[in-house]
Amino acid sequence: MTRQLDTDGRLRHFLTTEGLPRNLLLQLLDTAESFAGVIGKSVKKVPLLRGRTVINLFFEASTRTRITFELAAKRLSADVLNVNVATTTVKGESLLDMLRNLEAMQADMFVVRHSESGTAEYVAQHVGESVSVLNAGDGWHAHPTQAMLDAFTIRRHKGGFEPLVIAIVGDVMHSRVARSQIHALGGLGAGEVRVIAPRTLLPRDIESLGVRVFHDMRLGLKDADVVIMLRLQRERMQGALLPSEPEYFRLYGLTEDKLAVAKPDAIVMHPGPINRGVEIDSRVADGARSVILEQVTNGIAVRMAVMSMALGARRETPPAPA
Amino acid sequence: MTRQLDTDGRLRHFLTTEGLPRNLLLQLLDTAESFAGVIGKSVKKVPLLRGRTVINLFFEASTRTRITFELAAKRLSADVLNVNVATTTVKGESLLDMLRNLEAMQADMFVVRHSESGTAEYVAQHVGESVSVLNAGDGWHAHPTQAMLDAFTIRRHKGGFEPLVIAIVGDVMHSRVARSQIHALGGLGAGEVRVIAPRTLLPRDIESLGVRVFHDMRLGLKDADVVIMLRLQRERMQGALLPSEPEYFRLYGLTEDKLAVAKPDAIVMHPGPINRGVEIDSRVADGARSVILEQVTNGIAVRMAVMSMALGARRETPPAPA
Amino acid sequence: MTRQLDTDGRLRHFLTTEGLPRNLLLQLLDTAESFAGVIGKSVKKVPLLRGRTVINLFFEASTRTRITFELAAKRLSADVLNVNVATTTVKGESLLDMLRNLEAMQADMFVVRHSESGTAEYVAQHVGESVSVLNAGDGWHAHPTQAMLDAFTIRRHKGGFEPLVIAIVGDVMHSRVARSQIHALGGLGAGEVRVIAPRTLLPRDIESLGVRVFHDMRLGLKDADVVIMLRLQRERMQGALLPSEPEYFRLYGLTEDKLAVAKPDAIVMHPGPINRGVEIDSRVADGARSVILEQVTNGIAVRMAVMSMALGARRETPPAPA
Repeated sequence: MTRQLDTDGRLRHFLTTEGLPRNLLLQLLDTAESFAGVIGKSVKKVPLLRGRTVINLFFEASTRTRITFELAAKRLSADVLNVNVATTTVKGESLLDMLRNLEAMQADMFVVRHSESGTAEYVAQHVGESVSVLNAGDGWHAHPTQAMLDAFTIRRHKGGFEPLVIAIVGDVMHSRVARSQIHALGGLGAGEVRVIAPRTLLPRDIESLGVRVFHDMRLGLKDADVVIMLRLQRERMQGALLPSEPEYFRLYGLTEDKLAVAKPDAIVMHPGPINRGVEIDSRVADGARSVILEQVTNGIAVRMAVMSMALGARRETPPAPA
Repeated sequence: MTRQLDTDGRLRHFLTTEGLPRNLLLQLLDTAESFAGVIGKSVKKVPLLRGRTVINLFFEASTRTRITFELAAKRLSADVLNVNVATTTVKGESLLDMLRNLEAMQADMFVVRHSESGTAEYVAQHVGESVSVLNAGDGWHAHPTQAMLDAFTIRRHKGGFEPLVIAIVGDVMHSRVARSQIHALGGLGAGEVRVIAPRTLLPRDIESLGVRVFHDMRLGLKDADVVIMLRLQRERMQGALLPSEPEYFRLYGLTEDKLAVAKPDAIVMHPGPINRGVEIDSRVADGARSVILEQVTNGIAVRMAVMSMALGARRETPPAPA
Repeated sequence: MTRQLDTDGRLRHFLTTEGLPRNLLLQLLDTAESFAGVIGKSVKKVPLLRGRTVINLFFEASTRTRITFELAAKRLSADVLNVNVATTTVKGESLLDMLRNLEAMQADMFVVRHSESGTAEYVAQHVGESVSVLNAGDGWHAHPTQAMLDAFTIRRHKGGFEPLVIAIVGDVMHSRVARSQIHALGGLGAGEVRVIAPRTLLPRDIESLGVRVFHDMRLGLKDADVVIMLRLQRERMQGALLPSEPEYFRLYGLTEDKLAVAKPDAIVMHPGPINRGVEIDSRVADGARSVILEQVTNGIAVRMAVMSMALGARRETPPAPA
């Protein structure tokens, strides 16, 4: 696997939360904290990456994710180019040749989104010294910036990770988000990470990741500090993995009733976009314990942190508004 | 209806020209005048909206309109993101959830374009305190920046509105532009606003808007100071509302011959894009009295004015070139 | 033909390398040299075109070319708008009316890409005084920035043009790149320009351009200082112009074996994207004598040079990093 850190232990690529040292995860959260202050202001811009070139290399359409990275890069004053590879006339050019070309244009960073697991890793293996690669989601494998914005949101509400019981609920099998969360929360020393899902939506080896497995919501949510709902891909219904949407909602949909067994100050999270009435009830999604929209806001700060760290703008001083 | 003004009477959203107080309409024209000077220079940029985020939220494709707003925002130094919702994989996300998400990313302004009347209003009703909404055209309802750039162009040529006879010609029924013009010109105190159209292209209640109705071009254009031609949507021909293009041109197409009954210094306007030989003869469109391209130029300044006013950059001092 | 130079002999449009005076070609290379230093730095940006508006007017999709112009413009601090005319709802608007509109928005430069020869020229004939037009490739006719980046790359490696033997190999008939190269290299005083191609891929009048014609690779490459391979459009195979890909590769594909007859320090060039195993062997494309990726890097500097010269930022002082 490509090393994500350079020889000085500093972030170069950001491909997965798996195996990252705790101090780096914490540095990322701390850096994001400094940016969170910036983007709350009317002038939401710092000059840290002025003159740097970030290329959004999207092999599958994801307007939502593209926007978050584009915004993060622009708020760091970088130049951003969107390259939608699906619609590109590739003219028989191989991926490698395309990468070499973009690199030759002095791009500093590729933000890679692909429907196949391992693509960001592959890209990182093949770029030159001066380019950083961020994984913006690859297949079922990883979505590390999403996991870090979740960790950021948890820390803002709970102060730390050690004493927490964190329950991840839903389609863990097909969720790159869940995998990245489990690795990030493990790396950050979370007290207990639980997964709650029907057997058909759990990978076989899930316990080897250090999580406790539950198939019953009320047992799994008991005394949880944080409840993370996963998006249910509706196409799973056809795949005979699930009975029906109403049945799924009855068993695994988060309702106020089920949430009652969690801690009174438990927070509810979701990577979005939410399926109201499928994996989460609207009263919960829009309720006082939901921090779903905070996650979105924090996502910009976290992506700014990853970008600025990976591009070597590893300043000791906090960024000043420009 | 959503208030477009905040409690201090300042512009917050810009959804319609209907009901806006005259002093605000004039303030908008005056602000646009200050920007018109800026964009005539080689450095067409002011730092007024640096660090602000403008999102072009287009639910129907309109490259032309998108470009004008994108240019206006960039010349104010804002960061602009184009989101083409039609092509977005919405993944079952509702419009409201999408808005909340974009808002959570600390967007400052949504520029909304939609084929259905009322969408910009709906969006404005549902955004939070810190977001401004601009209507870039919603169905047959309104296109307020177009109306204001028309008013701006008229004032530049005629000095004011009170003594003017202004004739709007063509498909008033399906024209958001015409509706917005009638409200804006009424609010600015135009002497007499006329509409000239066949009965099939006039809404029934049109006289209640304070306009004089004509079905004959030569009667309606008599002594007009300003002639505003509307674009004829060619698909109306199929709808049995109109006989044929040549017949329409014979009756309602603007020719030098028909224009001769207007005042000698009458100006000719059109929101574009023009249908040469359908609603306007090329000799008129490209003639000495046409101000059609000036309208395009003025459109940037007017949109800069609306954006800067709505985003609270309501400075007393004129913008300095950056 | 539209004059590319203004009355003071300075670059206004850049449509073709044909007929440009040597001193201007050299000035362009020298200006590019100053930018090449800038884009090697981490802050790859100069403020030369701040507040200027560049519109990429692409009538055929070419992500690769669009990116190079977009990057060049952004690194000059210009505002860039991408207008993909193919997907634009033109609403019956003519090309001329569209140009006048974009011009009225105070665009400073159109970068035009079209599948038909002569389009950039046509656009240049019809824009107003204040707009510059760059040809980003029109049909088989010209691709002048590609030719200049090739010349730039050659000069960097060989110091000059006079003593050189330069061989252009492949589908000269359908290559706008080849035409532009021949004119540029001629204008710069290259010692000998050869074309090597089967008869079916050579225009009849090619010798009138001052080149030597070869149909045999080994004869044509003999003692060459520079070998420029052209991309083979695979659709030519169907057109009965060529036997088969393997047969083409056997006769005209650049291999180490064939390259052995060129000078020992010959460099290998290709405008990209390359067809590995069709017109060039991977060992050559990735080998020590290949400067293909340098060409890509140089392409940004050359396009920055053309843009800054055409927009009148013809400063005597070298650009300072911003």
